[in-house]
Amino acid sequence: MTFFIESCAVDDHRYELDKGVGAAGAPAWNLLAGDVPFPAAVLSERRIRHNLDWMRAFIDTYGLSLAPHGKTTMAPRLFQRQLDAGAWGITVATSQQARVAAAHGVRRILIANQIVGAANLAATAELAALPGMALFCIADSAAGVALLGAVCRQRGTTLDVLIELAPEPDQPGFRTGVRDAAGLDAVLVELKRWRGHLRLSGIEFYEGVLSDEGDVRCFVRRAAATTTRLLADGSFERTPAILSGAGSAWYDVVAEETAPIARSGDVEVVLRPGCYISHDDGLYRTAQEQILKRNVVAPTFGEALMPALRIWAVVQSLPDAARAIVAMGKRDVAFDAGLPRPATVFRSGRDDWPVVAPPHWNVTALMDQHAYLAIAPGDDIAVGDVIAFDISHPCLTFDKWRKLLVVDDDYRCIEVVETFF
Amino acid sequence: MTFFIESCAVDDHRYELDKGVGAAGAPAWNLLAGDVPFPAAVLSERRIRHNLDWMRAFIDTYGLSLAPHGKTTMAPRLFQRQLDAGAWGITVATSQQARVAAAHGVRRILIANQIVGAANLAATAELAALPGMALFCIADSAAGVALLGAVCRQRGTTLDVLIELAPEPDQPGFRTGVRDAAGLDAVLVELKRWRGHLRLSGIEFYEGVLSDEGDVRCFVRRAAATTTRLLADGSFERTPAILSGAGSAWYDVVAEETAPIARSGDVEVVLRPGCYISHDDGLYRTAQEQILKRNVVAPTFGEALMPALRIWAVVQSLPDAARAIVAMGKRDVAFDAGLPRPATVFRSGRDDWPVVAPPHWNVTALMDQHAYLAIAPGDDIAVGDVIAFDISHPCLTFDKWRKLLVVDDDYRCIEVVETFF
Repeated sequence: MTFFIESCAVDDHRYELDKGVGAAGAPAWNLLAGDVPFPAAVLSERRIRHNLDWMRAFIDTYGLSLAPHGKTTMAPRLFQRQLDAGAWGITVATSQQARVAAAHGVRRILIANQIVGAANLAATAELAALPGMALFCIADSAAGVALLGAVCRQRGTTLDVLIELAPEPDQPGFRTGVRDAAGLDAVLVELKRWRGHLRLSGIEFYEGVLSDEGDVRCFVRRAAATTTRLLADGSFERTPAILSGAGSAWYDVVAEETAPIARSGDVEVVLRPGCYISHDDGLYRTAQEQILKRNVVAPTFGEALMPALRIWAVVQSLPDAARAIVAMGKRDVAFDAGLPRPATVFRSGRDDWPVVAPPHWNVTALMDQHAYLAIAPGDDIAVGDVIAFDISHPCLTFDKWRKLLVVDDDYRCIEVVETFF
Repeated sequence: MTFFIESCAVDDHRYELDKGVGAAGAPAWNLLAGDVPFPAAVLSERRIRHNLDWMRAFIDTYGLSLAPHGKTTMAPRLFQRQLDAGAWGITVATSQQARVAAAHGVRRILIANQIVGAANLAATAELAALPGMALFCIADSAAGVALLGAVCRQRGTTLDVLIELAPEPDQPGFRTGVRDAAGLDAVLVELKRWRGHLRLSGIEFYEGVLSDEGDVRCFVRRAAATTTRLLADGSFERTPAILSGAGSAWYDVVAEETAPIARSGDVEVVLRPGCYISHDDGLYRTAQEQILKRNVVAPTFGEALMPALRIWAVVQSLPDAARAIVAMGKRDVAFDAGLPRPATVFRSGRDDWPVVAPPHWNVTALMDQHAYLAIAPGDDIAVGDVIAFDISHPCLTFDKWRKLLVVDDDYRCIEVVETFF
C-alpha cells in the first residue's frame, strides 16, 4: 500500500506507471487487493481483444476499410491497438484530436468535421504538412472550403478534402453536410478555386443522426451514387477515391450498401465506428442487438461485441434499507443515455466473491460525485463493498478519465491507458 | 500563429505556458486575434475577482468561515485565489481531490464525504500525517468510522472527523448522513473505540438535496442543536468545534441559521459553497436570484455574483435557414441542468464586434461534439463566426477542461488555469 500511495504522481493523483512495475513491466496492482483508489475505470483485456478481432472480421468480410472514430477513447494506446488490428487510419472530430493522434504517431487521420476557427485551421494545415502524413478533412459549404483553402495557400501545403453529404432536405435527420445539388455544386466550384491547395479526394457522410433503417439505406445509396457520378466526371483527385461513413449504430447497413462500390476497385470505402472497442451495456448493446437481427454477417462470428469498460466504485453509505449511496457520480460515468448498472460485487476478505450483482439493484440517480442505488431490505451489502458497474455511452465515460486500467481475468492491472481529451 | 501551433504541447494539445509568454509573463494570446483554438473555456478575471470579493463580504458579515468546495473547479490556482481572499480552507469530495489540493500546498482540507476503499483510506491517512496538515473527514456510520480508525491505527496517525447528519427520516431529501438518534449514538460509540486515532471535531451536513426553504431551516437548526448538545456533553475533541454545511444554493439560509452558534465562540461555522467563483447563467443564477430575494445581506453588496465562465466556439455549418451547427458538444460544456446560451458573437475583421447574441438564438440539442443552434432566417451568421456561450452548472463544465484561459476585458489571455480531475 505504502508503495502505491507514494507512487501516485502529482499529474493526476491516481496512478503512476514509472514506479513499482511487476515482472512483465506492468504495475503490480490487483483490483481485489485494495491497490487501486476507486472509483476507477477498468477495461477488460480479453474483451477488448475480442472486440478488435470481431470488428476486423466484419470489415474484412465486406472488403472495406476501417478508420475507427478515435474521439470515443482519445487513448493513443488504443488507437495503436486498432491500427495493429488492421485499421486503415484513425478518425477524429477536431483539430486538437488530430494533433493528439499525430503526436502519437498516427499518420493517416480523417477529421470527420469541417474545420473552423483560425487557430484550428492553422493547426490542421500544419499537421497536413508533416512528413508522411495523410490528413483528410471535411467540407460542406463554399465558406468552409474557402477557410481551408486560404490557410493551406498561406502555408504552402495541400490538404485532402472529402465533401460531406447530409440527408436530403425531405429526410428527417440532419446535422452538417451538403443538403442538395445546389449546395454540392457550390462546394465543387469553390474547391476548383483552391486547386493545388485542396484536393478533392472523396465523399463523406454521417448516418447516425437518422433513426429509420430505410432512411439510412436511402441516404447511403445517394452517397454512393454521388461518388459514382463524381468519379465518372473525373472530379476526384485521388485514386482510389474515398467514400466514408458509419457510426457505431448503422455500420452494418453502411457496409451492405457500400460493398458494391468498394468491389469496383475505384473507391475505397472507409467505415468509422468508434465504440466497438469498449462497446457498452446500454446504448450500443441495444444497437448491436439490432445489427445482429438485421445483418447476415454479424451473427457468424460467434460471440458478439462484449462490454469491456466498467467503473468500479465503493458503497459509501447505507442511509435506508432500500437505498445505498455509492461513491461514483456524473464526474465518473456517462449519464446521458442510460445510467450505469451494477454488474459484480466484491467484499474484501470474501474469497468466493466477486459475485454477480443482484438483478434488482438499480441506479436511480447520479449527482456530481454520488450514485443512488436502489436495493431491497435485507440485501447483503455493506459500507466498503466494491461494485463494478456496466456503463452506457463509452464516449462520455472515457472523457471523464485521464487514465484507465486494463486488467486480465484475475483483475490484475496489466496496463494503464492514458487519454488526451 | 506559427508560434502558437508550435507551442502546443503534447500533454493536452491546446495551450503551453512555458513558451511565448508576453511582457507580464502571460501568454501573448487574444481570443479575438485567432490565437487560440476553439472551443475554449474562458474565465473573466474581472468577474472572478468580483465574485471572490462578494463571497468574502457575505461570509464576513455573518462572522463565519469559508471552505469553498474545490470539486467545482479542481483548479489549484483558483484554490489559491480563494485562500488569498480569506478562505479558511478548501473542501473536496474525494481522497484524490484531497491529494491534488495537498500537492498544491493547501494545508487545511475538508473532505466532505465518508472515505471508503482501501487505497482511498490509505491515501487519506497519509495526507493526514503530512507536516502542518489539518485534514477533516466525514463519518456517517459505525462501519465508516471503523474503516477510518483501522487505517489510522495501522499508520499511527490521527484524523479529525466530523459526523455527518442527514435530514430526519420524515423529511423528503436525503443522501448520506446519520438519519436518527440511534445512528448518531452508534457513530459516537464507534468513535470512542478509535480514540487516539480519530478525533471528533464537529458536525457536518449537506442541505443541497432539499428543495424547500422550511425543510432547510429545520435541518440546519437540528444540526446546530446537535452541535450544542455534543458541545455540552464534552464530546468534541477540538476547540472550537466545527459545524460545517452549505452548498451554492442555500448558503444564505445556512448562514442565517448558524450565525448565532458562531457568535457563541465555541463553534467555528464553515460554509462550503463552491460555484460562486465562476457562478453561471443557469442553475446558480436562478439560485442566486432566490438568495437575493430572501436574504437581507446579499443585496447590500451592489452587483450580485456574475457569470465568469464561458465557452467560446465556432459556427461550423449552416445546414438550414433556421439552424446553425456549432463546434461545441457534450465534451465541452455541462448539459445536465440547462443547455449553454449564446452570449456574444464575434466575426474576424469586424472591429465593431463582439456584439450581444440575438436573444432568439437558442441551443436546442447537444451531441458529443456538436451543438444545434436555432436561429431565424436572415440572421447575420456565417461559418467561422465565434460565439461565446454562457453555461449552466460550472462543476460539469470545469471537468471537461484540462486548461482554462483567464482573460481581461479586452479578451487578452492573462493566465492559463490548469485543472486536476
